[in-house]
Amino acid sequence: MNTAQPPSYQNLKKHLGVYHARAVQRIKDHIPEKGPRESLYDLVLDYPTRGGKGFRPGLCMATCNAFGGDNELALNTAASLELFHNAFLVHDDIEDESLLRRGKPTMHQKEGLGIAVNVGDAMNVLGMRPLMANISILGHEQAWEIFTEVEHMVRQSVEGQAMELNWVRSNSSCISEEDYLEMVLKKTCWYTTIHPMRLGALIADVEISLDEFNLLGYYMGAAFQIQDDVLNLVADEEKYGKEKGGDILEGKRTLMLIHLMNHCSKKEGTEIKEFLGKERSCRSAADIEWIMTLMEKYGSINHGIVSSKQLAGAALHEFTRLFSSLPAHPDKEMMEDLVMYMIHRDY
Amino acid sequence: MNTAQPPSYQNLKKHLGVYHARAVQRIKDHIPEKGPRESLYDLVLDYPTRGGKGFRPGLCMATCNAFGGDNELALNTAASLELFHNAFLVHDDIEDESLLRRGKPTMHQKEGLGIAVNVGDAMNVLGMRPLMANISILGHEQAWEIFTEVEHMVRQSVEGQAMELNWVRSNSSCISEEDYLEMVLKKTCWYTTIHPMRLGALIADVEISLDEFNLLGYYMGAAFQIQDDVLNLVADEEKYGKEKGGDILEGKRTLMLIHLMNHCSKKEGTEIKEFLGKERSCRSAADIEWIMTLMEKYGSINHGIVSSKQLAGAALHEFTRLFSSLPAHPDKEMMEDLVMYMIHRDY
Repeated sequence: MNTAQPPSYQNLKKHLGVYHARAVQRIKDHIPEKGPRESLYDLVLDYPTRGGKGFRPGLCMATCNAFGGDNELALNTAASLELFHNAFLVHDDIEDESLLRRGKPTMHQKEGLGIAVNVGDAMNVLGMRPLMANISILGHEQAWEIFTEVEHMVRQSVEGQAMELNWVRSNSSCISEEDYLEMVLKKTCWYTTIHPMRLGALIADVEISLDEFNLLGYYMGAAFQIQDDVLNLVADEEKYGKEKGGDILEGKRTLMLIHLMNHCSKKEGTEIKEFLGKERSCRSAADIEWIMTLMEKYGSINHGIVSSKQLAGAALHEFTRLFSSLPAHPDKEMMEDLVMYMIHRDY
Repeated sequence: MNTAQPPSYQNLKKHLGVYHARAVQRIKDHIPEKGPRESLYDLVLDYPTRGGKGFRPGLCMATCNAFGGDNELALNTAASLELFHNAFLVHDDIEDESLLRRGKPTMHQKEGLGIAVNVGDAMNVLGMRPLMANISILGHEQAWEIFTEVEHMVRQSVEGQAMELNWVRSNSSCISEEDYLEMVLKKTCWYTTIHPMRLGALIADVEISLDEFNLLGYYMGAAFQIQDDVLNLVADEEKYGKEKGGDILEGKRTLMLIHLMNHCSKKEGTEIKEFLGKERSCRSAADIEWIMTLMEKYGSINHGIVSSKQLAGAALHEFTRLFSSLPAHPDKEMMEDLVMYMIHRDY
């Protein structure tokens, strides 16, 4: 009997929490003093202060320090990443018709669609302000380099989002794992892991090419996304903060759903496609249970768990290649913990 | 009997059309070659190629030339303005639940809500690309100055949008004309007139302060917005390209509706508020007729027309102050025509 418990990652969470809090404070510093509050600037702070995990500012700040930089110089960029991330979530929740985010009603559920679209837009433009503040700290040239990274990051996210939305809209059932991983690279990896590390390294003035971080970021980000989607199926709703099985309700093409559609019988495939073609409001709790049972039957959830662990293993390998020669540093340790946490987290 | 016809502005339209076409071509040059087409990049070009009037690129390019600059240097910025404008329209149509834009179904009506939100986001990030291309033409420093102008422009628009959405959401009936003009300054003027002129002047390296353009832009932009809202009530739907009376259906707080609410009887005021408190789907064509009749009764539409003309008169005065000492130039003439056109246009 295996009684080994996964580590609790208390140190990691504390460490990330500190970076997250610093980024949120920097976001607050960039909110204009004048302008509408209740219908705009108070709402801009809503998602960021719901207590996200702070992966993005954490990865950016920790990479900067681990590579010998001064991560105080990366704080504006980290704040910008956190703001863009939350802007993305506000619009993503609209696009996916999600009900809950971090345990509370989503922005459009709470404030109405119009205000929510506009708040997301406001967050995107406010995300530019810390990048402008980089000029006086890092000079015009590096400030533009950072900006170029951010432009690529946001653009990749909208491209990934377009791929995913199009699958739902066209009720696609012929999606390969390769398609899925391309979508995740675009939708998740660039902005969750690759660019945060690239930006931290850029500000640390590393001598290696920033492209060296791409593979590590891809493995980490994909492991993270798949684990996130597994948790949507199996996690404790209260801890996880989203509706359990919400992805199925949304018709989201997760690795598990794709695996199921590629492995079930023809008859089941037709039924699944029919279910996914229904209006969201016509999908019931019983439908979710039925899809979950099929996923169990075909080992789709297990396939997701295994894939996530494999990707995390590859990430660990890449991490060693890039970081092992660096001197010991709490931020280097944190980065290693973070790779492991991607597959051990239960919310 | 006054048989004078307003001028047809054929020259102006042609001149603006050339600038618009150049801006749209430059937008196309900045669309990435790879990436989703049907669900993203083809749609990014949808609104810009529906044939807008091209006020923003036109004002930017013409101001640059009129002040002795080379407006080829302003083309990236003009393209960026046109793209941000169209991004704003895609999201604005969602926020206002509009059905038609430039004579065709709005993006969310045509492509669904999720895709439309994402396409607007894509347009906003693509709007950054021409600004990045400014670096190699104008240098790091001026490229940042332009960026700072654009950040302010987009931020003012979301602030104005928040004010307007909040009036609809809270079913406000106590709005002064001063409140209205503040909202229009934020929502319309900065991005339609003030910043396009400031940016053209900046690129022309003018010696006067860019703030000198603020008052002219404010008068022009407010005249434009009020005339736009008047046209929504009285214009030929086919020419105008939006649903006639659509603003009333949306509960939009136009100058005319505000004038009506501030001048009608208490009983009528209660009825109007009740109507505006209804779900949009519960508002009928008869309701629109009834509000229109009340607007006629209290001279609200006429008040809008007169206000627009007064603002355009003030704009003409400001225009003379700023432009009269400049040498003759087709772009200077175009600017003057444009001020007049703001109040004469019938679509």
